[in-house]
Amino acid sequence: MNSFQPRTDDMQFILQQVLQAPAQLQALPAHTEADEALMQQVLEEAGKFVGEVVAPLNRDGDETGAQFRDGAVTMPPGFRDAYQAFWQAGWPSLACATEDGGQGLPTVLEAMLYEMLSAANHGWTMAPGLLHGAYECIKHHASDALKARYLKKVATGEWLATMCLTEPHAGSDLGLVRTRAVPLTNDKEGRYALSGTKIFISGGEHDLTDNIVHLVLARLPDSPPGPKGLSLFLCPKFYSDGSRSAVVCERIEEKMGLHGSPTCVMRFDEAAAWIVGEPGKGLNAMFVMMNAARLHVGLQGIGLLEAAWQKADTYAKERRQMRAPGSHSKAGEADAIEAHPAMRRILDAQRAWIDAGRVVAYRTALELDTLKHHPDPERRESASRWCSLVTPVLKSAWTDQAFTGASACLQVFGGHGYVREWGIEQHVRDARVAMIYEGTNEIQAIDLLLRKVLPDGGQALLHVLADLTDDLIDAPQYQRARQAIEQLAAFTRQQLLPRLQSPDAPIDTAQWLADDFLRALALVLMAWAWARIDMADPGGTTRWSTAHTGFWRWVWPEFDMRLATMNATLTPA
Amino acid sequence: MNSFQPRTDDMQFILQQVLQAPAQLQALPAHTEADEALMQQVLEEAGKFVGEVVAPLNRDGDETGAQFRDGAVTMPPGFRDAYQAFWQAGWPSLACATEDGGQGLPTVLEAMLYEMLSAANHGWTMAPGLLHGAYECIKHHASDALKARYLKKVATGEWLATMCLTEPHAGSDLGLVRTRAVPLTNDKEGRYALSGTKIFISGGEHDLTDNIVHLVLARLPDSPPGPKGLSLFLCPKFYSDGSRSAVVCERIEEKMGLHGSPTCVMRFDEAAAWIVGEPGKGLNAMFVMMNAARLHVGLQGIGLLEAAWQKADTYAKERRQMRAPGSHSKAGEADAIEAHPAMRRILDAQRAWIDAGRVVAYRTALELDTLKHHPDPERRESASRWCSLVTPVLKSAWTDQAFTGASACLQVFGGHGYVREWGIEQHVRDARVAMIYEGTNEIQAIDLLLRKVLPDGGQALLHVLADLTDDLIDAPQYQRARQAIEQLAAFTRQQLLPRLQSPDAPIDTAQWLADDFLRALALVLMAWAWARIDMADPGGTTRWSTAHTGFWRWVWPEFDMRLATMNATLTPA
Repeated sequence: MNSFQPRTDDMQFILQQVLQAPAQLQALPAHTEADEALMQQVLEEAGKFVGEVVAPLNRDGDETGAQFRDGAVTMPPGFRDAYQAFWQAGWPSLACATEDGGQGLPTVLEAMLYEMLSAANHGWTMAPGLLHGAYECIKHHASDALKARYLKKVATGEWLATMCLTEPHAGSDLGLVRTRAVPLTNDKEGRYALSGTKIFISGGEHDLTDNIVHLVLARLPDSPPGPKGLSLFLCPKFYSDGSRSAVVCERIEEKMGLHGSPTCVMRFDEAAAWIVGEPGKGLNAMFVMMNAARLHVGLQGIGLLEAAWQKADTYAKERRQMRAPGSHSKAGEADAIEAHPAMRRILDAQRAWIDAGRVVAYRTALELDTLKHHPDPERRESASRWCSLVTPVLKSAWTDQAFTGASACLQVFGGHGYVREWGIEQHVRDARVAMIYEGTNEIQAIDLLLRKVLPDGGQALLHVLADLTDDLIDAPQYQRARQAIEQLAAFTRQQLLPRLQSPDAPIDTAQWLADDFLRALALVLMAWAWARIDMADPGGTTRWSTAHTGFWRWVWPEFDMRLATMNATLTPA
Repeated sequence: MNSFQPRTDDMQFILQQVLQAPAQLQALPAHTEADEALMQQVLEEAGKFVGEVVAPLNRDGDETGAQFRDGAVTMPPGFRDAYQAFWQAGWPSLACATEDGGQGLPTVLEAMLYEMLSAANHGWTMAPGLLHGAYECIKHHASDALKARYLKKVATGEWLATMCLTEPHAGSDLGLVRTRAVPLTNDKEGRYALSGTKIFISGGEHDLTDNIVHLVLARLPDSPPGPKGLSLFLCPKFYSDGSRSAVVCERIEEKMGLHGSPTCVMRFDEAAAWIVGEPGKGLNAMFVMMNAARLHVGLQGIGLLEAAWQKADTYAKERRQMRAPGSHSKAGEADAIEAHPAMRRILDAQRAWIDAGRVVAYRTALELDTLKHHPDPERRESASRWCSLVTPVLKSAWTDQAFTGASACLQVFGGHGYVREWGIEQHVRDARVAMIYEGTNEIQAIDLLLRKVLPDGGQALLHVLADLTDDLIDAPQYQRARQAIEQLAAFTRQQLLPRLQSPDAPIDTAQWLADDFLRALALVLMAWAWARIDMADPGGTTRWSTAHTGFWRWVWPEFDMRLATMNATLTPA
């Protein structure tokens, strides 16, 4: 089994030709230097590091896994060295501000780095995966004293960070969190004592870095029940005097996959911690981390699917079984299985998801850069609209596809896919978790429809859909994509909104169809993305045109099914 | 984690009320005694054995797994004792002829036993899973001398059997098999020396029984290349004089799941073996085993889905998170997650597949009984038509659903589903293999469309579809199901057959749409099955009517998508 090799040429084509990122970024005062050459250089260096240092550790990460003993976690062979090389080379701080020790590069480059990392080694990548969110959270919410101690260490990745939210009885429902924070008496720094148990803490304990910074949701005394009673706290593994905090890793979970990442049960025994931000505003501060995390999870989906596709594509070219219809092989000779329609269909459909996913995800990252740095408030507003609506779609649809698509790629191997030797089954096991964490995919759909589409009467959504149409040349070859966009807009205006807003609508109707709505929007985004790719490569080299055709043949037909299901749900029998 | 408990009341309702099996079976001279009471007694006893003896071993089967050392395989704790109890109680020989040491009961009861066993412990069940096929193969093809030695041992399950087909370079394409069989000089029994390597041999080596009977595809000297050059041989682990044959288990595979079943690499070093049937007719003899095996794999799909659903359903009733829309819970209290539409949708859709799958699978088993024993050749002909067309659909569609549905059930657990503790992720890993073995699901689709529908111009299929319609009362509440059946018939007559038979049709068109066609037929069979269930329970108790509604809401919409995809493939742009 060969390890994953990033194909940065494909990624760059999408970034530079399809999305014309240099022009977009250079319009931002913060990124006037982000030209094609700079981005190319960063991505090639990143690809080299990922392919040479991180990817070869993936198999050991799965087989050996993170090991727990007496409260300590030993990471799989090579993980620590690779991480030390990673942060010392400055990769974690790519998109952090220069004044915090970062390099001040655009978010989109960081996004592309994490896509490659996830493809190469999902387990290893979990460790630095939350860093940037923790950096933003500390930067925007912590006191100056706290920032002085922690911001630079987290920005550079010298210390890793965790997000401690979930408790045994509080998963999707953070309002049920019980961990208590009680003011410490006579503490000069005004700290609190944290007590409680957190579960599913990725990287709660490990040997990659000398310190670990925990960001913890907890409840102050006399705080109201529910989410409004939650505050955010920072509790390190080691304080600056070298003493250890009262945070214990009780065990790590045995999981379906992702064995390279320790999923920890963390117990806080009156651990001294600083508050981050205002009391009762813990979820707000945490959401900064969670939004960044959701885009990253969408990118994991794209990366894992690319990794699975690479393996299946290579195998399909080498393995010969049966004669394909219309074969020109010599009598008695079998054809490469990539010549068989059922296998082609699998491979082309995955490429359709991967390439369109990149267009949508990189654009989202570019919109994040725009949101942060564009001088025009209206442009920032449109960037905010895009990120708010598209992030849950990316997270949900592309992690669903990472799992089902990796499983389809496994199928290309036949029985050989089910044995561990080829490494394809690891991708299926690893990918499964991304449908769950950072908000289950069902919660993403509810977030999209009930919190982002319905409250403003669909205005933001219709705005984004209109932008998508404006973004396409009005030429015959893009009519199908334009119609696809218009079809969803018309459905939203004419069916969805009036019926959901009607006083007769049962209170649960929106929830019944939220999943369908998210999928429909994902497919429309893909239709737009494929038109954009085609606009950048109008001749249509085989590489792109096969996947483009694959999109309309094998992926798009789901759209009508989703509309039909929504219509049936909206129209009581 | 509780182990699986068969729910025989649901299964019996389908067998006895929906399919009216007693009347059907008693029309067969061989099964005049198969009344409701007998079947109930057998199924309840089976359920007891499965729930008490086999199910509790499932977790250990996964965690400890089969262990390989120096050519020997040690099965997981308890497996041998359970197997000894199983065969001594007569379960393997349930449907074997009484003259061969069996109990002469209907195939449908054996089918239901295997569904329960697969649900309870897929890995353990692999061991006896091939027995009945081996029994039929030896019974119908072996010489009397060979039968005298092996038939009864295999019928009773005192010895287990294997099917040695696959080789490293010959998976789906058995024509590429290279294992050689050379006549032994001066062998009194006229045996052959087998030499070659077979892979993916389930139960090739183990400690469950005192002997193992291998049925091996190999090539005689000077035989033509391709499938017609293959003959079938029988080679035991031990000969009757107690000496060991030259068959070696070289290693067992590390797999994604199914750890309770050793998947062996078997090396034959001039191993003395008897021919079974005529030279060059090996595939014919083997197909007896493979058809039985395909129905069993479909039943595995149904069983695994039932096991996953049971776990998810229990969890969804107990776990409380968030308030459901329209909740009547007290302020601040969370609702059981089964009250959330996204979770209900998952649970109802799986029940729609499980219950309809049982109707289709049990009917298929009843048709096998009819095919074997009905005095009327016309009725046997219609039974043969059904089995031939429906077996690949069951194998493919219900194993696809076992995997995607078990994954959906995992989603109900949120993060708890991804950790091993609850046992749900094991079902996902175990279920994945069923999409591959006994002919990949893509090969099932090709078998259905290219070998069974097209060669007779669709006659058999249209016959089966007409029978389905005739089988439903012509009443308003069954119009939708009747229309569904007619829609596929009309599409077959008006679109599919004319276009595929046209001289202009590209040679690969049928292969491009084979998967869609199989899915469309699966959905039509489900529409029929749900109408049949409704006919048996016209009041529609909540238990059945919820899943029936779930079928039309969440499962059926795929049908139009499949028709649209096929139409697009048939109509060049």
